[in-house]
Amino acid sequence: MEAPEQSLCPEKSLAVEDQGLAVRTLDDSQAAKPEINATIELPNKLKVEKSAVEKEREAFRQAVVKTLEHRLFFHKSFDIYKGVAGLYDFGPLGRDVELNVLSLWRKYFVNEEDMLEVACTALTPEVVFNASGHVKKFTDLMVKDLVDGNFHRADHLVKDYCENRKKDPTISAENAAELDHVISLVEDLSAEELGAKIKEYGITAPVTKNPLSHPPLPFNLMFQTSVGPTGSSIGYLRPETAQGIFNNFKKYYNENGQKLPFAVAQVGRVFRNEISPRQGLLRTREFTLAEVEHFVDPENKSHPKFPHVAKLEFLMFPREEQEKTGQSAKKLRLGEAVAKGIVNSETLGYFIGRVYLFLTRLGIDKERLRFRQHLANEMAHYAADCWDAEIECSYGWIECVGIADRSDYDLRAHSDKSGVALVAQEKLVEPKEVEKLVIKPVRKELGPAFKGNQENVAEALEVD
Amino acid sequence: MEAPEQSLCPEKSLAVEDQGLAVRTLDDSQAAKPEINATIELPNKLKVEKSAVEKEREAFRQAVVKTLEHRLFFHKSFDIYKGVAGLYDFGPLGRDVELNVLSLWRKYFVNEEDMLEVACTALTPEVVFNASGHVKKFTDLMVKDLVDGNFHRADHLVKDYCENRKKDPTISAENAAELDHVISLVEDLSAEELGAKIKEYGITAPVTKNPLSHPPLPFNLMFQTSVGPTGSSIGYLRPETAQGIFNNFKKYYNENGQKLPFAVAQVGRVFRNEISPRQGLLRTREFTLAEVEHFVDPENKSHPKFPHVAKLEFLMFPREEQEKTGQSAKKLRLGEAVAKGIVNSETLGYFIGRVYLFLTRLGIDKERLRFRQHLANEMAHYAADCWDAEIECSYGWIECVGIADRSDYDLRAHSDKSGVALVAQEKLVEPKEVEKLVIKPVRKELGPAFKGNQENVAEALEVD
Repeated sequence: MEAPEQSLCPEKSLAVEDQGLAVRTLDDSQAAKPEINATIELPNKLKVEKSAVEKEREAFRQAVVKTLEHRLFFHKSFDIYKGVAGLYDFGPLGRDVELNVLSLWRKYFVNEEDMLEVACTALTPEVVFNASGHVKKFTDLMVKDLVDGNFHRADHLVKDYCENRKKDPTISAENAAELDHVISLVEDLSAEELGAKIKEYGITAPVTKNPLSHPPLPFNLMFQTSVGPTGSSIGYLRPETAQGIFNNFKKYYNENGQKLPFAVAQVGRVFRNEISPRQGLLRTREFTLAEVEHFVDPENKSHPKFPHVAKLEFLMFPREEQEKTGQSAKKLRLGEAVAKGIVNSETLGYFIGRVYLFLTRLGIDKERLRFRQHLANEMAHYAADCWDAEIECSYGWIECVGIADRSDYDLRAHSDKSGVALVAQEKLVEPKEVEKLVIKPVRKELGPAFKGNQENVAEALEVD
Repeated sequence: MEAPEQSLCPEKSLAVEDQGLAVRTLDDSQAAKPEINATIELPNKLKVEKSAVEKEREAFRQAVVKTLEHRLFFHKSFDIYKGVAGLYDFGPLGRDVELNVLSLWRKYFVNEEDMLEVACTALTPEVVFNASGHVKKFTDLMVKDLVDGNFHRADHLVKDYCENRKKDPTISAENAAELDHVISLVEDLSAEELGAKIKEYGITAPVTKNPLSHPPLPFNLMFQTSVGPTGSSIGYLRPETAQGIFNNFKKYYNENGQKLPFAVAQVGRVFRNEISPRQGLLRTREFTLAEVEHFVDPENKSHPKFPHVAKLEFLMFPREEQEKTGQSAKKLRLGEAVAKGIVNSETLGYFIGRVYLFLTRLGIDKERLRFRQHLANEMAHYAADCWDAEIECSYGWIECVGIADRSDYDLRAHSDKSGVALVAQEKLVEPKEVEKLVIKPVRKELGPAFKGNQENVAEALEVD
């Protein structure tokens, strides 16, 4: 049920640089919506001076990052060759931190919940991501700097423009509301709509101020390669580990004695060809993802261990609250959130609680940890509901864990495409007798009556 | 100093199927050179019946593999879509085995030897593999079945032909010696020479017996992709983890207080686009590699802990012995092997000893474990000397660990290409005074004397 996304949340700052392990050492970013550390410079009349607090924060951050890089917690990959944007290596201390986090993850999830841990390949044939929807939908819209040829994410440009524009103390309340509206919708805008906004606002390329290509074009974030010597077999590097698990659902279900619920965990490298990765570890092109897919009876999403977490109380930010102006995350008791239907099931609630316990055990300050529900337009193409665990740091609230109800989207998609039924069967305590009307076409008689169309007619009659 | 290669050794059988965890359960394969389980069928007159022992062994192996797959130790990836050759997933029990092996590896190498463990990216820019020689040399020669379009490794076809041909009891001693000669050279033959052998022997495609393309063409085993949205930045998936370590040499050297020797360890996924992967786990397109790069003063390859392993005695198969006919691996004391120069340094010997201890601790039967020195023509393009730890199983002797002296090949290559000196400096206990003749051209006077050539002359004079 967890499928962490690396997407930046609406409050996220543009100039996200090295975050690293600085999270807990900063104590000056209490605001729910941090001020914007703009790299897109606005025309002079709109320029907003950085506040003293912001400058101080940035100097501190840079000092921390410098230390972390110097001590080899992490650093740019291949930097004797000037590196590649979005690729970072972990040195000995960073690798130690990673191994410790993974060890705790294994203890909290795999061992304590008795999950099946598996290891699937990163190389994946095209058919899998055709079925899952990633070939069509795992895209971002991009525009090109017409002079230097660099690409930029269209939604980021529009959002950053709006957020910077809002800083102008002279704009009207009406204008500010309009900008807020655009910010909340920006991830849902089509290529044409985003292109129109870019034109309307006169947005140019960051830093260079060059004109941009029009309209924005979709760019698939999966790395493509070809498998085998013929060059004809397209493969992709997985952008999430989950598809391997869905493909093997039947095996794992059998391994679990054909009983629901059960969960499968996987940790491994995933790859996303980000259009314009930011500095640092926040949005990289290759990273380690630890995932859990928990399979549950859709008609019974209760969880026997939910009472263990029902009394936990922590910051939650439901969709409804986000849609009102001026709201922020509030402390809620998890049991209450489920009882009121804010969180839609005990199972979803249970994993939110477990993630809370895991992250606070890792040392995350609970005052800087919130669970934010995705807005309807923000969810990935497969998600029915999604809550992000977000940690507040000098960049604002940063998504660290995604907890999504993917419904049966993936299993259904792979069943349809592969012809292998990825389903669970329930053994009823008592057998049920069901009367069913079944039509069996008499093909001999259909022939003369429908001539060339007999097969279509027979098929239509046979549909359940 | 270890750089495991996945290449099959000369004694290896062609029809390598699922090996899995069957290694220790088989007890019928004592022969140093196992009989060939041919998938290439020979003309009828040459056909050699499988021996009863061979048939029994295969039936047993198939039963073991079936059980391992059924219990999800491993299975084909994406098999609801019929899978992809060379890709395998580990189910829960297989993943447990992998985690246990890695945990022991970490204990035996990283912890006990106080190594730096790091994690570099799999995605790698082209410049790195241009410098390392992989773009040019990490290739296999392939031929194409002209009817079904499948590709085959040219060297495998020739070797398999020779090994099958040798089974004919009617061939002369002279012919047999010639076949042995070809087998020993096959990895060193050029495309033209391999093509000529294929023609001379009348070799056709395995199974189909179709004609083959001519001459064999090189195929690079790295998976290629492009990084970023422009499509112009070529990247490869690493076929070994070592290049990340070499790129970061300077950082790790500094981290180690600028002292030699020190070692850097890395475990992670690597990717090799095998032309025709065999069934099972022996030659896959994606696998986990655990590597150690031990950096040592080339003028002092002694190892302070060598006495700890010098008394170990196990099966070794030096190059010289392999070149004589009818020889097999013999028990040698490691200290003696180093003293006699069979193993070229204490450091190389130390790691051979540590690998022996690691593998036997893992449960490998020491009677089925040997250390075989690479023949001169068999070594990877970067290696100065190489010993493989090979385990005998129903497929013959299978390479499991490679221990190579890569000399300064990689550091020198990356220094040259990047312009960053990847070197270690020695602090002498007492300063040395060195007299040196230095020529300082007086450029003012070179001008009139050499006109347009003055720069070339000055440069030539300034060379050390």
